Amino acid sequence: MKPLLAITMGDTNGVGPEILVKALAHPGPWEVCHPFVVGSAPVFEEVRRWVPNCPQARRCHSIAEARMGGTFTPIMEGGLDAPVYDPGQLDPAAGKCAVEWVKLAVKLALEKQIDGLVTCPINKEGVHKAGYTFAGHTDLIADMCGTPDYRMCLFAGAMRVVHNSAHVSLREAIELVQTDRVAASIRIGHDGLLRLRTPRKRIGVAALNPHAGEAGAFGTEDAEIIAPAVALCQQQGIACSGPYPADTIFRRMQQGEFDLVVAMYHDQGHAPMKLIAMDEGVNVTLGIPIIRTSVDHGTAYDIAGTGAAHEQSLLAAISLAAEMAATAGAEA
Amino acid sequence: MKPLLAITMGDTNGVGPEILVKALAHPGPWEVCHPFVVGSAPVFEEVRRWVPNCPQARRCHSIAEARMGGTFTPIMEGGLDAPVYDPGQLDPAAGKCAVEWVKLAVKLALEKQIDGLVTCPINKEGVHKAGYTFAGHTDLIADMCGTPDYRMCLFAGAMRVVHNSAHVSLREAIELVQTDRVAASIRIGHDGLLRLRTPRKRIGVAALNPHAGEAGAFGTEDAEIIAPAVALCQQQGIACSGPYPADTIFRRMQQGEFDLVVAMYHDQGHAPMKLIAMDEGVNVTLGIPIIRTSVDHGTAYDIAGTGAAHEQSLLAAISLAAEMAATAGAEA
Repeated sequence: MKPLLAITMGDTNGVGPEILVKALAHPGPWEVCHPFVVGSAPVFEEVRRWVPNCPQARRCHSIAEARMGGTFTPIMEGGLDAPVYDPGQLDPAAGKCAVEWVKLAVKLALEKQIDGLVTCPINKEGVHKAGYTFAGHTDLIADMCGTPDYRMCLFAGAMRVVHNSAHVSLREAIELVQTDRVAASIRIGHDGLLRLRTPRKRIGVAALNPHAGEAGAFGTEDAEIIAPAVALCQQQGIACSGPYPADTIFRRMQQGEFDLVVAMYHDQGHAPMKLIAMDEGVNVTLGIPIIRTSVDHGTAYDIAGTGAAHEQSLLAAISLAAEMAATAGAEA
Repeated sequence: MKPLLAITMGDTNGVGPEILVKALAHPGPWEVCHPFVVGSAPVFEEVRRWVPNCPQARRCHSIAEARMGGTFTPIMEGGLDAPVYDPGQLDPAAGKCAVEWVKLAVKLALEKQIDGLVTCPINKEGVHKAGYTFAGHTDLIADMCGTPDYRMCLFAGAMRVVHNSAHVSLREAIELVQTDRVAASIRIGHDGLLRLRTPRKRIGVAALNPHAGEAGAFGTEDAEIIAPAVALCQQQGIACSGPYPADTIFRRMQQGEFDLVVAMYHDQGHAPMKLIAMDEGVNVTLGIPIIRTSVDHGTAYDIAGTGAAHEQSLLAAISLAAEMAATAGAEA
């Protein structure tokens, strides 16, 4: 049975609506899952004018209806009315809808009424102006799941990276390089590979310092903190190794030596992945009890409403969520 | 007149000798400069057996002779006898030769007897075992030049990065993010572009924290330290901007938006450049009064003597040094 996936519209004034209609105009998403939108039917219809191949919106009020899409796109509004579509404009009302739609989708996933969720971008400023205080999309979702030990990951085909920390300053990221936490990052990455049923599960762990610290000459964290975490996970049967110099580990993954890299901070993973993955990177939250993927870009207010935004990342996010859900379903 | 460039052999037991004979078997280096080797004639000849197209070694004892190569490869030994060629073996005697050859080449460059130098890799452990205490190749050269304000750079075609700091721990690299130092990095990068006579000189400055600090939410250095350095250099007429998020700035350079990026730490510049440049990256030292380029890899003891090492980086390093020297010559 194909998995049922909620796709949240995100901030209606960002590029979310247009990448949604563009993605759902492709046959791919409908072939790998039952997608339905959690968002605004009027905004969807307004944007769909440019992409008439996308099945038209039909409001749905139950999970059974959400599963019926194909000739139409099921839209669950959750009783929320989006503000008038005004692309590129910061609107706290759009921020509020974006958050409440995510909450609805997470609730359905936690109740196992759906198999997972795929999120379109929200605008942090809009969300904060709407009165919410969480640090980011992923933090909100993890908080609703009651999971403190989650990790932000980027996947792009066979290139995968788990970040030991994400939206913190570089100074704070260094403080978060702790043996327990790094070991948890490795385990969470390994669980992700298990969930994806990759044929191999070789994990490369990136070093914090240049040249992996060059035997202590450029910092001690690699030898004293990261190496013990790698050893601990090896004892637990995980095929991990490192720490390896961060300036070549991604090329080594690209050449097939690793199936996943554990990065020590946000930019260490993001910068190489954005070069390798181009537009097909997917943001994945691992360590939470539900399946959640996301596009790896923001609301892009500067191009919202122009039709310039590409749907590749959303297509990849839907495809990856469907793959993870299919594996989970087969195990259940 | 073609520039005269010294190419130091580096550690004779590393890949230096074999990339040298492979590079000098190409017509390119001989077309753009008068190359001569500062190293061991016997080791050169031993390795040249695999690459008979490379002009054979002939010892030279003067600058006039060094300029006469083409049908032969001029080799200046500086009165040093290299140890028996034993690829992959750590040998303090090889470390000592490597350092003394670099010193000789730097001396000739400072005396303006030659137009620049290109260096093959040395092995830090071998060098330290030979009793030298400097931190690295570049530090030795800068020290001989009496220049405290030098920067390690990586160039690969139109992709260029200046590092605000290099061989220090990530913690120390953060401490080195100071307004004066970042402004100096920008100026040194700008001077490098002037020296290369690039048609445009747009410099993008990378942020230290993820999302360039996201308005102070993830660290204050970007707004409080880096932004003022950018403003200072703009006032001095340099076309620089930033700080920009480090996870997309290299892709933006790849797409033509910048001619050079200033990175805040070693891996921030190295990781993307090693993905973009593949084997054609060149290590350039800017801020010193002489022209010095280098391959961007190490001695690779694991493959030394097998003939597996590629000469692309050395070819690119020779070509870049020749280009910089030609411009300097035209100005003189």
